[in-house]
Amino acid sequence: MPNPMFDRIALIGIGLIGSSLARKIRQENLAGEIVISTRSQETLARAAELGLGDRYLSDPAEAVVEADLVIVSVPVGSSGAVAELIASSLKTGAIVTDVGSTKASVIAQMQPHMPEHVHFIPGHPLAGTEKSGPDAGFAELFENRWCILTPLEGTDEAAVERLAAFWRGCGSNIDTMDPQHHDMVLAMVSHLPHIIAYNIVGTADDLETVTKSEVIKYSASGFRDFTRLAASDPTMWRDVCLHNKDAILEMLSRFSEDLASLQRAIRWGDGDKLFEMFTRTRAVRRSIIEAGQEIDAPDFGRFVASHPEKR
Amino acid sequence: MPNPMFDRIALIGIGLIGSSLARKIRQENLAGEIVISTRSQETLARAAELGLGDRYLSDPAEAVVEADLVIVSVPVGSSGAVAELIASSLKTGAIVTDVGSTKASVIAQMQPHMPEHVHFIPGHPLAGTEKSGPDAGFAELFENRWCILTPLEGTDEAAVERLAAFWRGCGSNIDTMDPQHHDMVLAMVSHLPHIIAYNIVGTADDLETVTKSEVIKYSASGFRDFTRLAASDPTMWRDVCLHNKDAILEMLSRFSEDLASLQRAIRWGDGDKLFEMFTRTRAVRRSIIEAGQEIDAPDFGRFVASHPEKR
Repeated sequence: MPNPMFDRIALIGIGLIGSSLARKIRQENLAGEIVISTRSQETLARAAELGLGDRYLSDPAEAVVEADLVIVSVPVGSSGAVAELIASSLKTGAIVTDVGSTKASVIAQMQPHMPEHVHFIPGHPLAGTEKSGPDAGFAELFENRWCILTPLEGTDEAAVERLAAFWRGCGSNIDTMDPQHHDMVLAMVSHLPHIIAYNIVGTADDLETVTKSEVIKYSASGFRDFTRLAASDPTMWRDVCLHNKDAILEMLSRFSEDLASLQRAIRWGDGDKLFEMFTRTRAVRRSIIEAGQEIDAPDFGRFVASHPEKR
Repeated sequence: MPNPMFDRIALIGIGLIGSSLARKIRQENLAGEIVISTRSQETLARAAELGLGDRYLSDPAEAVVEADLVIVSVPVGSSGAVAELIASSLKTGAIVTDVGSTKASVIAQMQPHMPEHVHFIPGHPLAGTEKSGPDAGFAELFENRWCILTPLEGTDEAAVERLAAFWRGCGSNIDTMDPQHHDMVLAMVSHLPHIIAYNIVGTADDLETVTKSEVIKYSASGFRDFTRLAASDPTMWRDVCLHNKDAILEMLSRFSEDLASLQRAIRWGDGDKLFEMFTRTRAVRRSIIEAGQEIDAPDFGRFVASHPEKR
């Protein structure tokens, strides 16, 4: 077996992303040793039961000692606190990265704590499911997904390339961009969809003319699609909303403007306009399938997944 | 083999729903003869190539002759025209039903044309995928889905029960309700989700700060979920918007009100409110899975569907 890519990787946070990384690191021999730390004793004990790492430590400062790569996988609102805790224990030349869904805020929180002798390279793997916790992770989570790195000016290029190689080893494709652009893009492709999904599920839950049991029973007619994103981790998504506020408000305002226009077309019975709006959106899905970012099966492959005998 | 449930079934319209019915009727021997009619010559020829029926006729009036069950599966805006065309050819005692997503409008369009000697029973199977056309149908489409019947006052109960038995034979569960309530329920669980999905995909398509290629590449972070509903048949959905206007406008207005409140919580950084809103929606998905209306696998089972070896 070739030498592992890193001698020691420290995973701070062992939820869906952290535990998927742990599994993939082991599978691909990306680290000689995996050290895991997380704040909750219960989660740490579960990670140990699952055998996700080699050592398990409550104290993140202890966990990062002698680590060549430190991956912080916590809700973005906790990044600053973690950075402060680990700062003085980081090894010279270590790469410190994160997986947070917002980048400008994470940089503002973490960078002030980072010593000169480490390479701090913010990152964001665009991968996940609606599940959370160490049991929910799986090694293939990052397969053919994009990981965006947002290195700061003056960052050592060899270190960036080393981190990119790590993510490629996890199955990801790599892009780099500046943090502000990342936050704008993600506000559109990820944050807005989640917020809209949470909102529509909340609207349905509040109705009095339609009962909850009707919403549940008849959900296969469209509604259930939104319940997946709306089942995502509330702490993570609260923090995203608090830490990418400006870009999210901008996207929300465009969405609402467009919705007002669509609503007007419905009110005035403008069939041609509705037809045009409902036609152009078809091409977007086709492109996503062609880009390998969506399954090419009707209904997200639900039927295939639940009827293995029909494959 | 037992006698078929109906001697002759006429299917007017042979898209996703009509062609799924044709396949299931054959599989379960629900009809002695399947007669298919649709307006497009090309679609009719394709239905014949697929062997979906026993006879194929351009003229719907000819197709319904001697049929015991007539199922109209066309965009809801065309229901009135079809009803007018077939009215004088309907057999005495025939059951005439439809599969339209709106019920009050379909009744207003069709009932005036229906002769006294037939049983007109509006219906709506809550089943579908984002695909359309005769190739997209499959026999299992209605399996464990709900079919809502909205019989008019004074309708023969035996005829309603016969139609219910037919849908149960297709694998559906049956509910009956009044047309107005149906339209209100569906505006929430189906029409609003589709409109919101069309809208968000349109918003993304219009942005200039985020490129189309970025939207496509990074869509797995949430956005792609919405592209499925937004890839649905534009004619069908234009008609739904035009024919269930009041209920849709009511649901849109509630949705927008809730979204304004959520937006305000984001603007003012009200983390507690966001956390509360994002927490209660999780339970809704759990209930849908428990009700057997959603697959109990992360990410809609996409991973399972695309990695059969990992099952």
